[in-house]
Amino acid sequence: MISTEHTSKQFDAELEAVRAQVLQMGGLVESQIRLAIEALINDDVPLMDRVINDDHRVNGMEVQIDENCNQIIVLRQPAAGDLRMVMTVVKTITDLERIGDEAAKIARMGKLLSQRKSIILPRYTEIKKIAELALDMIHKSLDAFARLDLAYTAQVVRQDELVDEEFRTIMRYLISYMMEDPRTISTALEILFVAKAIERIGDHAKNMSEYVVYMVKGKDVRHVTVEEIEREVLE
Amino acid sequence: MISTEHTSKQFDAELEAVRAQVLQMGGLVESQIRLAIEALINDDVPLMDRVINDDHRVNGMEVQIDENCNQIIVLRQPAAGDLRMVMTVVKTITDLERIGDEAAKIARMGKLLSQRKSIILPRYTEIKKIAELALDMIHKSLDAFARLDLAYTAQVVRQDELVDEEFRTIMRYLISYMMEDPRTISTALEILFVAKAIERIGDHAKNMSEYVVYMVKGKDVRHVTVEEIEREVLE
Repeated sequence: MISTEHTSKQFDAELEAVRAQVLQMGGLVESQIRLAIEALINDDVPLMDRVINDDHRVNGMEVQIDENCNQIIVLRQPAAGDLRMVMTVVKTITDLERIGDEAAKIARMGKLLSQRKSIILPRYTEIKKIAELALDMIHKSLDAFARLDLAYTAQVVRQDELVDEEFRTIMRYLISYMMEDPRTISTALEILFVAKAIERIGDHAKNMSEYVVYMVKGKDVRHVTVEEIEREVLE
Repeated sequence: MISTEHTSKQFDAELEAVRAQVLQMGGLVESQIRLAIEALINDDVPLMDRVINDDHRVNGMEVQIDENCNQIIVLRQPAAGDLRMVMTVVKTITDLERIGDEAAKIARMGKLLSQRKSIILPRYTEIKKIAELALDMIHKSLDAFARLDLAYTAQVVRQDELVDEEFRTIMRYLISYMMEDPRTISTALEILFVAKAIERIGDHAKNMSEYVVYMVKGKDVRHVTVEEIEREVLE
């Protein structure tokens, strides 16, 4: 558990509130990705527009939470575990905001694909699979953050490797598509960028998991191997 | 200018030291990009390896500066402009670290391209051009940070649009290449990912410039238009 030097109940409530806001932002971001993928698969342009328009809500939450963290630092002068918690929040929301950007990007790619009325009907099976993996990573990272529980951390790091592998599979599959029929190249590249956006989402989720280790253990695992993380978590 | 409520000379020196560290990290990151592009153009594999191996230095600097910022918060309890400065540093080094990752990625792509002994000899004119643009953006962002000078901010945001445009030009050019000769597809995709990495670097540089506006003005311009930034800066 995190050490709690502070005694003020009000302070506890403030920290709790900011943590709840992060989870709320995380929920919104998860929903944005789900909707972007759903819109892509169903060629649902109004839904794509909704995802694009709702990105400002994610951005607004980032600015608000950032502001609240600054307030806490100024008014409460947190130290040790509390400060780590606040700094973890600041970093986490940066990644969440960028995941939100990727969701909007996927929706924009979806619109391009829709306009193209493409000559290949993309099979989105693989895109769905990699998106589910990335969503699971976000979910586990937020869970770890909420419960200060490191059990999932190494799992998330390993899942990121799976996402990268899945991305390479999709790329190979698209390359063979393009080679067979060069008229599919533009469409295939748009699908490739969707996959790339999802791969980025995995990277951000991995960052978020690593911040939780720092928050709980006070050790920075951003630049170590997954084996070292596993040792760290088990300690 | 930033407001200076603190009176301690020691505190001033600490803030100055952390700012200097950010600039040093920025210099290392700029050099990593330059070397990665140089290695790519000259097909210089040992230099690519050096870039990949030196990425840990960038990572180490991020962890160190982060630690110093936490120390300053705990010991000095900065408020207002000073706190904004510290938080700006924390955010800036996250972007610098990710720019470092992109430099290493470019070097890894270079190695793949080198192994492939590709049937097309890529013209790197466009890659060089987009890389120069992105490097200039980083340089201006660091300058703005160093001098607390907002004159460059809107410029950097506009340059980011240029980088995005240049990326689309490269993509169109690569598509026509691939369509003409499908055997070039794999190579073309690797070059496309190099261009994508550089486009990302531009995004990070833009983020850094926006943090400087926040630091100086106390206003968050991350999610506003370039016109609004210009108004903000002129005020």
